[in-house]
Amino acid sequence: MSTAQARPLLTDSPAAATQASFPSSERYAAHVDRVIDGFFLRSKRRAAVLGESYLLLWQTLESNAAGGKRFRPQIAMMAYEGLGGTDLDAAAHVGAVFELLHTALIVHDDVIDRDFIRRGSLNVSGSYRDIAQTAGIPIPIAEHRGMSVAVVAGDLALAGAYRLIDHCPIDAVLRARLTDLIDEAVFASAAGELMDVDFSLGATTPSVADVIEMERQKTAVYSFEKPLQAGAALAGADDDVIELLGEVGRCLGIAYQIVDDLLGVFGDERETGKTTLGDLREGKRTVPIAYAATRPQWASITSRLGQADLPRHEAERIRALLVECGAQEYSLSLARDFANRAWETLYSPRVPPALRESLRAVVASVLRRTR
Amino acid sequence: MSTAQARPLLTDSPAAATQASFPSSERYAAHVDRVIDGFFLRSKRRAAVLGESYLLLWQTLESNAAGGKRFRPQIAMMAYEGLGGTDLDAAAHVGAVFELLHTALIVHDDVIDRDFIRRGSLNVSGSYRDIAQTAGIPIPIAEHRGMSVAVVAGDLALAGAYRLIDHCPIDAVLRARLTDLIDEAVFASAAGELMDVDFSLGATTPSVADVIEMERQKTAVYSFEKPLQAGAALAGADDDVIELLGEVGRCLGIAYQIVDDLLGVFGDERETGKTTLGDLREGKRTVPIAYAATRPQWASITSRLGQADLPRHEAERIRALLVECGAQEYSLSLARDFANRAWETLYSPRVPPALRESLRAVVASVLRRTR
Repeated sequence: MSTAQARPLLTDSPAAATQASFPSSERYAAHVDRVIDGFFLRSKRRAAVLGESYLLLWQTLESNAAGGKRFRPQIAMMAYEGLGGTDLDAAAHVGAVFELLHTALIVHDDVIDRDFIRRGSLNVSGSYRDIAQTAGIPIPIAEHRGMSVAVVAGDLALAGAYRLIDHCPIDAVLRARLTDLIDEAVFASAAGELMDVDFSLGATTPSVADVIEMERQKTAVYSFEKPLQAGAALAGADDDVIELLGEVGRCLGIAYQIVDDLLGVFGDERETGKTTLGDLREGKRTVPIAYAATRPQWASITSRLGQADLPRHEAERIRALLVECGAQEYSLSLARDFANRAWETLYSPRVPPALRESLRAVVASVLRRTR
Repeated sequence: MSTAQARPLLTDSPAAATQASFPSSERYAAHVDRVIDGFFLRSKRRAAVLGESYLLLWQTLESNAAGGKRFRPQIAMMAYEGLGGTDLDAAAHVGAVFELLHTALIVHDDVIDRDFIRRGSLNVSGSYRDIAQTAGIPIPIAEHRGMSVAVVAGDLALAGAYRLIDHCPIDAVLRARLTDLIDEAVFASAAGELMDVDFSLGATTPSVADVIEMERQKTAVYSFEKPLQAGAALAGADDDVIELLGEVGRCLGIAYQIVDDLLGVFGDERETGKTTLGDLREGKRTVPIAYAATRPQWASITSRLGQADLPRHEAERIRALLVECGAQEYSLSLARDFANRAWETLYSPRVPPALRESLRAVVASVLRRTR
């Protein structure tokens, strides 16, 4: 493993990094869209037989699945092509599994967080809450109705993820390997969601390591580790390369989540589409917050954190305190360390140069978020 | 199809029917328990690696899965043996899929119904609500925490159902057939749950046919139709027999649900373990209620129905009105008709006598509930 070789990426100019970003995105996206569109088309046809309402649920779920960047399928396909795979339709099938899994998990996560909006649009809970409210149903009942339908919708997306793999023409051994990886993703994300629910009760103050472990299980495993590994498994990669890609995904995923924590407090709302008040009002346990809890400024932070009606100037004060106590700098540097570790792992002699080249843009884009 | 031949069952004395009930239950249960215990043992081992809390979640889910009668696996195995199948372990695997699916659906159904108790014991939501409450968390937050954990637990059971089929050593064609059947079960139960959520808003008064359709999709498909069909598919049955068993399951499942509706209002609480106030206080749209909505007594019923604090004497008045308007008798007779139709369908010449004999006890037990 050579840090000297890794250096070129780290000194890339932002412009170069932007150019390097996801060169295959559009080519991959077309394949993935075809798989996902096909899944929803089949499902909507079947749903229509059971009635208008069920068709509407599938349409709502489809539009919730449509907003994303198809990030997970793309990295699965990068790993696949980087390891010599040529059947992009098969790779798109495997990638789409993680996209549907992502849809299932965010729909249920929004139920758990009582969120009715995602990325500036109504989610399943929000759409159905509004339909009920428009029909004259009182707000608490309308909200519960929205969440109830979202529980059902998430179940359908989760079942859909397992189903997609059945439509992929692969042999039994490979199918077993892939379903194991999907299962590990579901298993981990449930563990992470449970940790998150426990943290949100606020009974304890989790350490930075606890928060990283939660973020890894809840998001990094199904968003980075398993898509990379599934793409590699589909390409027929050796076990040691698959294992190594797990490590790359783990580091990348953690880096990505730490940056997400920072953007949730310090981000540009116009760019992220996410308010920088939400996490502070919720009192969310993030890496910068967990770090700040070990600093003298914590008393001033914790007295403000988690107020549902936290005013903007008080949020500004928390931000200043997070900078002052070093939580912002610490988190940034930790994210950079993890991204660099991912990059260095890719310099293992076991990694074919084509794979390294293929994933270079992903590491670069995560690193770019730390600037 | 001969109604004359069907008669012997219908004139069975209750005692004879009891003796005939599920002769293979214990033999089947041992196989099913082994599969389900194995699934939870593997899951708990894996969960323990991720921490105590996750292990506790799996233990809670396991005890929620343990309370049932293993009814769904049993009828799958009856269909399998009745069609000449001899590998009871494989049949138990397939049956256990429906048991885990059942666990997933009731855990999520309880979230939707805001129930914290099932069959007299705390469900997942209730267990986790109580843990939070004991730790000093205020009730509304503790309740939401319970429901949040139940969303996660239901997801794990649903994923587990899809996983179990992977551990069953069968060929690819059969696996595809079985996963299709499981998928149809999930697809239907989501449609039924959605109808139920819509009915519960009380904006419309569903007809008897609407309620039957809801109950069929929500419960009968995954509890009767698909387990019977999956058992038959595993035994290598012809498509026409599989289709016919779907019809048997549909009729039996609807009969079962109508009786359930009646027991929810008129049942013996000591026998059913279920309060006869719940459905009335909730204003649940059931077959007897949908029938009553077409009768002159409806005004007196609807003015009482759906009051969260409905007193016992008012519930007694609704019961009297349901009897007076003929809703009880109508529902009973409808249930009997469906059970008889199931029995007559089993007299098709395409059904081998061994299968008919095997399912005789199931039909008898459903019919017995109508007495």
